[in-house]
Amino acid sequence: MSGMELAIDRGRLMERIDALARIGAIDGTAGCCRLALTDDDRAGRDLVVGWMRDLGLEITVDGIGNVTATMSSPAGSPVMTGSHIDTVATGGRYDGNLGVLAGLEVIETVIAGEIELARPLGVAFFTDEEGARFPPDMLGSLVFAGGMPVEEALAVEDAHGVTVGDELERIGYRGGAPCPARPPHAFVELHIEQGPVLEIEDRTIGAVTGVQGISWTEVTISGQSNHAGTTPMSMRRDPALVASEIAVFVHRLALEMGEPQVATVGRIDLHPNLVNVVPARATLTVDLRNTDEALLQKAEAALAGRLVELADEHGVEIDTRSLARFEPVVFDPAVVDLVVDVARARGHDPLRMPSGAGHDAQMLARVCPSGMIFVPSRDGISHNPTEHTDPDDLVAGANVLLHTLIALATDDPEEGRS
Amino acid sequence: MSGMELAIDRGRLMERIDALARIGAIDGTAGCCRLALTDDDRAGRDLVVGWMRDLGLEITVDGIGNVTATMSSPAGSPVMTGSHIDTVATGGRYDGNLGVLAGLEVIETVIAGEIELARPLGVAFFTDEEGARFPPDMLGSLVFAGGMPVEEALAVEDAHGVTVGDELERIGYRGGAPCPARPPHAFVELHIEQGPVLEIEDRTIGAVTGVQGISWTEVTISGQSNHAGTTPMSMRRDPALVASEIAVFVHRLALEMGEPQVATVGRIDLHPNLVNVVPARATLTVDLRNTDEALLQKAEAALAGRLVELADEHGVEIDTRSLARFEPVVFDPAVVDLVVDVARARGHDPLRMPSGAGHDAQMLARVCPSGMIFVPSRDGISHNPTEHTDPDDLVAGANVLLHTLIALATDDPEEGRS
Repeated sequence: MSGMELAIDRGRLMERIDALARIGAIDGTAGCCRLALTDDDRAGRDLVVGWMRDLGLEITVDGIGNVTATMSSPAGSPVMTGSHIDTVATGGRYDGNLGVLAGLEVIETVIAGEIELARPLGVAFFTDEEGARFPPDMLGSLVFAGGMPVEEALAVEDAHGVTVGDELERIGYRGGAPCPARPPHAFVELHIEQGPVLEIEDRTIGAVTGVQGISWTEVTISGQSNHAGTTPMSMRRDPALVASEIAVFVHRLALEMGEPQVATVGRIDLHPNLVNVVPARATLTVDLRNTDEALLQKAEAALAGRLVELADEHGVEIDTRSLARFEPVVFDPAVVDLVVDVARARGHDPLRMPSGAGHDAQMLARVCPSGMIFVPSRDGISHNPTEHTDPDDLVAGANVLLHTLIALATDDPEEGRS
Repeated sequence: MSGMELAIDRGRLMERIDALARIGAIDGTAGCCRLALTDDDRAGRDLVVGWMRDLGLEITVDGIGNVTATMSSPAGSPVMTGSHIDTVATGGRYDGNLGVLAGLEVIETVIAGEIELARPLGVAFFTDEEGARFPPDMLGSLVFAGGMPVEEALAVEDAHGVTVGDELERIGYRGGAPCPARPPHAFVELHIEQGPVLEIEDRTIGAVTGVQGISWTEVTISGQSNHAGTTPMSMRRDPALVASEIAVFVHRLALEMGEPQVATVGRIDLHPNLVNVVPARATLTVDLRNTDEALLQKAEAALAGRLVELADEHGVEIDTRSLARFEPVVFDPAVVDLVVDVARARGHDPLRMPSGAGHDAQMLARVCPSGMIFVPSRDGISHNPTEHTDPDDLVAGANVLLHTLIALATDDPEEGRS
């Protein structure tokens, strides 16, 4: 049987996605709520672990609750895939789940097809990727890759003071496998795009080149509250105006810098926020992202410079606070090229694109050659029960994953390809 | 005794201001809370009416609770002053109260000085000027001047469904005097500026030329909510950006049009208002004011035109709703000139200036020659317990009111002066 004719079982994949989505389903929608380490998360984990067992895979659970299922032969360090099965409170059914269930499907297809590999395949689901209950996000894969000591991760508390460690014990997923884990041979994650680019570009497959660096800044502007009728324009120190100038500036900055720079002001809070009062204070957030660390720093510097100018021009005080800062991640060029080649061989016209969102693969990229495959999100919507990807695209993505993993697990021919 | 030597009694004025401010005092501040037609408002009314009685004035209460106290001689239509004694929930002690108590002080001074007048003087306090409990503001003077039928005003409800009529009955201030009232000969109101202009210009007296027209518009922008990381700038329809462009535009518009045009965006609400989400929707308010109706309409038209452009440029829907619209009021030039002359004669350098806020005098201007005298507000602060005016300025304003009212109530010499 030739590798190019091998394909995953569409019906089985869709049934499993559906079965998993029924756990924590949000009534009246296609979405679900399975926050990390809740009873619903446990039920989802149990379901997936059951399917892993059915395939005779070797299952390990590590100290932070990451679950890995690996083919028992051949020997050697595995070519891995995986993602997460926790969701945000208003989650969709594909975010994360697709990568785990497609990975399972790939392994079942390889086993059923009796494909000979030089290395075993493995599939994992990582704990608390969303970070919706326990910050930061990508917690499980961060610990897996050695980015945070497991003790520190176990002590993370949710909003009610419950720790990751206590919840892992409670749901029976605090395992004995070591973390950081032994690095896999390579890691490739299939995920929905969660953005509109593939749909608008009319592409089925994205070959993800890296993950954008993120810079979140909270800006607080203090001016002088005044009566909107009795205060001449020349006597104002208006924080709402300065907040607006910042939003207009960062938008223009992103346009001038060009793609992939993006800039967003998603939150503005005025105080007292009344029609006839020049506000005393404005707080806004600026979200800057770029795949290039130097360019991201350039954008940050431009913003900082503009804030100094605005404070001076408008006689206001401006304070800033960093809410988050992550450097960009660049995926392994050989893995990205492989995804492109595999997709093309299957008749697709893949788009090389960065990920705007964070994913477990960026943590794995610290320890092994890694990459990602994206499939389209309808209207770019995610973290919402209306999140949707066409089944044809789900299957196409799973088949690109299948042949990418096989290529990575097959010696020599692919070793020399890049 | 020459009119120019006559002066009000500083100690008595300050004592009365203090006594009235103790009713509804906000603990630990100099401010007070006497919302219209509450028990505290009744107690304040009773106190002021007692002082009116002590002077032997003829007191009438009309159907909307406006209280007028007039000298019993000479006969004829009175030269009136007055203001209001209701406050906002976080009110100061001078807003309104000064005009009523200074008016009382003027009459007491004229009586004590046995000044001969051609017309009687009267002082009134009007119901619900603030509109903080019963909208609209200036309700009592509006009805007094015939701008609203009394039945309609009596039916106005507060947030709990209690009507003006029920509360007037309850506190004993639903009187029998007709409204609209017979127009006075003239009306002049003393009030704190509630803005920073006099203080910054280092003037003690403002001769108010009119009240700005007000145009309040609520603007709702509907775009497309998107992930801040995964949505390229070119694919966004960002309501927060459009809201910011509007705020920047109206500020520039006011600067270009020059004084007295003012423009304020005091309220911005984004939805969902999260750091990493391009909002689906933004709502903001635009407050435009000008003393010239044609210029105010020009500003409104410029805003409307810009909204059309922005909707087109950014692919968003923009809906607008008028929250308030009042045409400018122009005070009687002869009354304004008289205030200027009287102030100069007393050694002041008065500033001709519009009022940015609404006042009872603008309602009286519908039925008789009217004007206003402003005294400075420290830091321009009002509607706040920290509202403050220097006692020297309070007294100076009361003395300008005294001599302005005497001039208006004295025949012939002043009749021909303008």
